Amino acid sequence: MATAVSPLAPSRFPDMPEVPGVRLATAAAGIRYPGRTDVLLALFERGTTVAGVFTRSKCPSAPVDWCRAKLEPGRARALVVNSGNANAFTGKAGRAATKLTAEITAGAADCRPREVFLASTGEIGEPHEASRFDKVMDKLVQAAAPGQWEAAAKAIMTTDTFPKGATAVARLGKVPVTICGIAKGAGMIAPDMGTMLSFVFTDAPIARSALQNLLARGVDDTFNAVTIDGDTSTSDTLLAFATGAAAARGAPKITRASDPKLAAFRKAFDAVLASLSEQVARDGEGARKLVEVIVEGAASKRAARRVALSIANSPLVKTAVAGEDANWGRVVMAVGKAGERADRDKLSIWFGGIRVAHKGARDPHYDEAAASQVMKRPEIQIRVNLGLGKGRDRVLTCDLTKEYIAINGDYRS
Amino acid sequence: MATAVSPLAPSRFPDMPEVPGVRLATAAAGIRYPGRTDVLLALFERGTTVAGVFTRSKCPSAPVDWCRAKLEPGRARALVVNSGNANAFTGKAGRAATKLTAEITAGAADCRPREVFLASTGEIGEPHEASRFDKVMDKLVQAAAPGQWEAAAKAIMTTDTFPKGATAVARLGKVPVTICGIAKGAGMIAPDMGTMLSFVFTDAPIARSALQNLLARGVDDTFNAVTIDGDTSTSDTLLAFATGAAAARGAPKITRASDPKLAAFRKAFDAVLASLSEQVARDGEGARKLVEVIVEGAASKRAARRVALSIANSPLVKTAVAGEDANWGRVVMAVGKAGERADRDKLSIWFGGIRVAHKGARDPHYDEAAASQVMKRPEIQIRVNLGLGKGRDRVLTCDLTKEYIAINGDYRS
Repeated sequence: MATAVSPLAPSRFPDMPEVPGVRLATAAAGIRYPGRTDVLLALFERGTTVAGVFTRSKCPSAPVDWCRAKLEPGRARALVVNSGNANAFTGKAGRAATKLTAEITAGAADCRPREVFLASTGEIGEPHEASRFDKVMDKLVQAAAPGQWEAAAKAIMTTDTFPKGATAVARLGKVPVTICGIAKGAGMIAPDMGTMLSFVFTDAPIARSALQNLLARGVDDTFNAVTIDGDTSTSDTLLAFATGAAAARGAPKITRASDPKLAAFRKAFDAVLASLSEQVARDGEGARKLVEVIVEGAASKRAARRVALSIANSPLVKTAVAGEDANWGRVVMAVGKAGERADRDKLSIWFGGIRVAHKGARDPHYDEAAASQVMKRPEIQIRVNLGLGKGRDRVLTCDLTKEYIAINGDYRS
Repeated sequence: MATAVSPLAPSRFPDMPEVPGVRLATAAAGIRYPGRTDVLLALFERGTTVAGVFTRSKCPSAPVDWCRAKLEPGRARALVVNSGNANAFTGKAGRAATKLTAEITAGAADCRPREVFLASTGEIGEPHEASRFDKVMDKLVQAAAPGQWEAAAKAIMTTDTFPKGATAVARLGKVPVTICGIAKGAGMIAPDMGTMLSFVFTDAPIARSALQNLLARGVDDTFNAVTIDGDTSTSDTLLAFATGAAAARGAPKITRASDPKLAAFRKAFDAVLASLSEQVARDGEGARKLVEVIVEGAASKRAARRVALSIANSPLVKTAVAGEDANWGRVVMAVGKAGERADRDKLSIWFGGIRVAHKGARDPHYDEAAASQVMKRPEIQIRVNLGLGKGRDRVLTCDLTKEYIAINGDYRS
């Protein structure tokens, strides 16, 4: 396994403030990894609302099924996350383990099982022993304290090479409220050892349905616009928790996502999601380059997204980037296979601002040496104009390197 | 670039008989590769019918556009194939080069330009100079002779590590007729240097529309069921030519694909397509293992195909096979992301005949050591039963190795 930190990692974990109403604790339960923490407990004050978006996999993990079923009534008092075992494809025993974990947590945290949210990441198909939580849960509840963000982000890592966190402050009415989020990603999405999990916390008083709307809209241009290898885990989970603690300081209660008072908050919330999802791309397995794919001139934003994902998921495009080759022929290929309308004679392609193809042929002013220089950068932009309409979209990905093969092709044992 | 022959290659090129009415010649036109042949000319007797299936790319190459437009009336007197330059994304100049090549060939072969079929494979976006054909065409026409299959298969290679040919004999009525085919593939489908091209020739007298039907149906479970990296070239072309020469020996003329006299021929024709497409999989860039993915118990054959392609195109499944890891968690992931109905609790998975997962959980009798033994073989079967219906399908692919990255990630220059 690769252990070196991704060259695309931020220089350090951000300074993240406490979120009133949220306490955190971590423990080493020995689920899979020796000598490191692998369980995160978050405790929430009474009145905390929760929203969630999940993998579209038709074979979701037991914790995903559990959380989905608990989004209504959508009250949260605790979140338990473990790394090492995904509790996916574990059948009835897996569902029983999920229920038992919620019951153990509810007993220790003095709440109801349905107020406990769960996420697991790690190996698929391995029996998941809820008893491991039993041993550490009382200590976790006692130890829970505000602001332990970096420890929390580390406890949920699998093949990640750095912990991922982001924070923002926004005014709700005239009251500053805080948003803090953590994520894990790496091999987006390697179900054997990785999965995208992210948890966002705020003290803003936002009703469940408004929070759900906020999250569902926010994810579209952030986590849903990041791809590492096109694979989709059984366990992808993004949960948002709003404690409402800021109401005591005079923050207005938000019941509808369309409330104009939410505008600044939405912007900050989306920025946290954008930062976390970009960090996931920066920690793509074996990644050496961050790739931003922009598609313009499409018939619609939806069409632009499909074309952008086709480019971002193409192994041939991604290996070309790894090889620092401004190989726009492969971009043409990926545009052509996306299934959206494309007219060769209207297509233009840029690598890092250098136009390499224009209106159906190689750009007459194309300078391969200049393009090669651009490709040596750690961050590469591939821009495509389809010349058909006004639809535009943006997707982040990373290059495909031999290290990806090494990480995913090595023996599991 | 890799030059060693794929370990999955057949031991030798097959003995392939002449096809009456077909003559072949090759030449070195210096399009891209020094010291090797790069142009193939096939000449056909008057009365030869032609059928074709092509890439679904929305940005097809100029030769693909040319051939599509000439399928009706569907008379062929010549086929010109070059390697080294795909004449794709070359705009108006590329279309002009295609037309000029057909005119040059028609002049030399004494036929009409619309009776000349064209295919090009190689770099995208490079101007294609038809004048190169001018220099060699007269010699090619003079040299054309029956039975030069291996030379023909070699002239169309790009990153292929071995020439691909297949042959069969079938009775049409009481008369034996011959089918011979050649193909190139390798990086299915690397538009920089590779593309899937295949050409099949027979002396059976089959009308254009019947031949088209035969080809379109035959391709579904052969070439369309092979995937290397999920990428789709701008140039994929499969053409079938029927000279009708066997009519002189008493073979009945076939005008409808539903003619019962065609049954044995169809079987032989499909076997040639199956062999050629399997050879393409065996020469996947960097391939060390041939992978057969079988999906059973799906709601329909179409659903089974989607699930099988999802598994076969998953980088995580393919790297696991490269690592000889019976990682069925990744197969679950790929089933889940396929978008077809899947019930975790009904799913069973086998690697090479060993059942590793059954009814929603790890098989209680699963023996990891036995599974590991199976994974060491050069040919791996992954079988999935969804437990939902009677739909079944089969797809071939290969593993994803560091060599794939090396081949596709090296500098183009």
